[in-house]
Amino acid sequence: MGSTAGQVIKCKAAVAWEAGKPLVIEEVEVAPPQAMEVRLKILYTSLCHTDVYFWEAKGQTPAFPRIFGHEAGGIVESVGEGVTELVPGDHVLPVFTGECKECAHCKSEESNMCSLLRINTDRGVMINDGKSRFSINGQPIFHFLGTSTFSEYTVVHIGCVAKINPLAPLDKVCVLGCGISTGLGATLNVAKPPNGSTVAVFGLGATGLAAAEGARIAGASRIIGVDINPKRFSEAKKFGVNEFVNPKDHDRPVQEVLAEMTNGGVDRSIECTGNIDAMISAFECVHDGWGVAVLVGFPHKDAVFKTHPINLLNERTLKGTFFGNYKPRSDLPSVVEKYLSKELELEKFITHQVPFSEINKAFEYMLQGDSLRCVIRMDA
Amino acid sequence: MGSTAGQVIKCKAAVAWEAGKPLVIEEVEVAPPQAMEVRLKILYTSLCHTDVYFWEAKGQTPAFPRIFGHEAGGIVESVGEGVTELVPGDHVLPVFTGECKECAHCKSEESNMCSLLRINTDRGVMINDGKSRFSINGQPIFHFLGTSTFSEYTVVHIGCVAKINPLAPLDKVCVLGCGISTGLGATLNVAKPPNGSTVAVFGLGATGLAAAEGARIAGASRIIGVDINPKRFSEAKKFGVNEFVNPKDHDRPVQEVLAEMTNGGVDRSIECTGNIDAMISAFECVHDGWGVAVLVGFPHKDAVFKTHPINLLNERTLKGTFFGNYKPRSDLPSVVEKYLSKELELEKFITHQVPFSEINKAFEYMLQGDSLRCVIRMDA
Repeated sequence: MGSTAGQVIKCKAAVAWEAGKPLVIEEVEVAPPQAMEVRLKILYTSLCHTDVYFWEAKGQTPAFPRIFGHEAGGIVESVGEGVTELVPGDHVLPVFTGECKECAHCKSEESNMCSLLRINTDRGVMINDGKSRFSINGQPIFHFLGTSTFSEYTVVHIGCVAKINPLAPLDKVCVLGCGISTGLGATLNVAKPPNGSTVAVFGLGATGLAAAEGARIAGASRIIGVDINPKRFSEAKKFGVNEFVNPKDHDRPVQEVLAEMTNGGVDRSIECTGNIDAMISAFECVHDGWGVAVLVGFPHKDAVFKTHPINLLNERTLKGTFFGNYKPRSDLPSVVEKYLSKELELEKFITHQVPFSEINKAFEYMLQGDSLRCVIRMDA
Repeated sequence: MGSTAGQVIKCKAAVAWEAGKPLVIEEVEVAPPQAMEVRLKILYTSLCHTDVYFWEAKGQTPAFPRIFGHEAGGIVESVGEGVTELVPGDHVLPVFTGECKECAHCKSEESNMCSLLRINTDRGVMINDGKSRFSINGQPIFHFLGTSTFSEYTVVHIGCVAKINPLAPLDKVCVLGCGISTGLGATLNVAKPPNGSTVAVFGLGATGLAAAEGARIAGASRIIGVDINPKRFSEAKKFGVNEFVNPKDHDRPVQEVLAEMTNGGVDRSIECTGNIDAMISAFECVHDGWGVAVLVGFPHKDAVFKTHPINLLNERTLKGTFFGNYKPRSDLPSVVEKYLSKELELEKFITHQVPFSEINKAFEYMLQGDSLRCVIRMDA
């Protein structure tokens, strides 16, 4: 192990002191990893909507000061007691949800919703001792999603760390930790469009475009993007989207428009907005007999999904997915391999890059709707 | 071909002259089959709820006089022009829905909802010429579901005829034409419970018990029957149901009771009542991560399925099925083979038998809730 193993590390981190206020680069102390934890040196991180959502803290339980960040690529610096699967120097992606490999979900081939390490947006501490590993002059700083990658060093439970091929460029594959794998997996693991099929994607943000990328990889012949923002259409072409529908251009439900365009309905649809009306449209636009709709976007807590049950009885399938049904440790390495084999194109998702010192610009790009992914380089 | 080929056949049929009035055994004339039709000699038929529902005609478009009946076993008497797959003497099951083998649904591996011959409860005539093949003194008598098996002879489109193993006893396999295959297929083809899993079945009528039979065949270890009629529980044990829940015994939603009994939810559920609240319970009682709910029961036309979308996003699957996803011609012969190999037990579904002359007793047994299936013997 390196000379820092077992020591407190002092390093730079971007701290959110208050909801909605710019992050401040501070010197923080990062405690050594405890049992079943590892400490990572983060090289690249990227910004996802979920960071912005909890930073804005409009309605969620606020937990400040906090270190956000949950999409990143890094290298293991040191490991805690009992860690045998990872050693210092391993290249890894930390993940906001985990895989303990022991619970009923981890043992099921069908689920990735680990009972122990499933996403918990309220928790700001490590599960081992209920405490934070970050502090400034003795004041604890909360973790976020168990990852807190807006720091040069962070401590993560080993169940939330995917060991990947060290040949993979971390400045690219760092974006695989959340939304992009979510969209890709929603298509490849859940919707599973047959070669030559027609796929509708609702919402052309990063997750929706990743769903479209999945449809392109699966060999779908028609990929119909649905979005109320017409600016998104030209960029979406790079992701295989070859037809567009703006619901605002029609005075009838978009599911009827799609059914008419496709002789009765699309083969698969993937809903990436979280809007309840879009969810219902995404379900009702699939073809009877074989259509499958997959819900990805996170709904408002009071939303109610409503449909006439005959839509189901006519042999439509409705499913939801979490992180694209990928088990973080078992499956994410194979997504990295898809990138290395040039099957999956990641460069087109990375629209911006900033040095760590300018991390607040990444928030601005996202709030302006200009970026898909802004990669933040930690050493600059 | 027999001497009757090409001739009008005079035979006995049970005619429904008016909604809800006892059927009357009449001498009817059965015209020869036209192109792509066959004329069948029916040996055994059984009564299904759908016959009773359209005979009662409370709310549906009434079409009288009509010959009901759509579960039956028979033998091909003669064939119409262009029929090459069937010859006189073939043992067959007529089916209320069809398989043209030409449309997008028939060509899809995932659908059995044939565009040409999909169930049509309003149509009382043959699709070839829009006319009936039945008449009494020149007055046409309407068909029902394209089968009209409450007649010694009937004419059926070849797309609605499954050719089966002639060794199969028609007095048993005649019950495979509708509800029993529907329930069985809902489990085996759609829910697909893994060996050792837990399955909840909502509604312990013939279709629900067939769903339970499917779970037994699949090797489910816990099969939980849910019904508001406690009388059904003892009979259900014969079908593998080993636990029972009566929603009326609890003052909270039955999905909560089931989740508590099963450490978070059942692996699979099959809804066979058509009641919208049962549909919602059947969905919400499946385990997150991997649970699959299958809707079978036909809903009220104004029913609305409602759930919080997070129930889907937590990786539950909701699907509906029609005729258990069996393609009538391609798949029903294999269900007959399951019976012949003693994998599938049919005898326990047949609770009553009556001669054709007493067909109205079959209606009484069903209306009293005493019967699962009453087999009607045509030659007596």
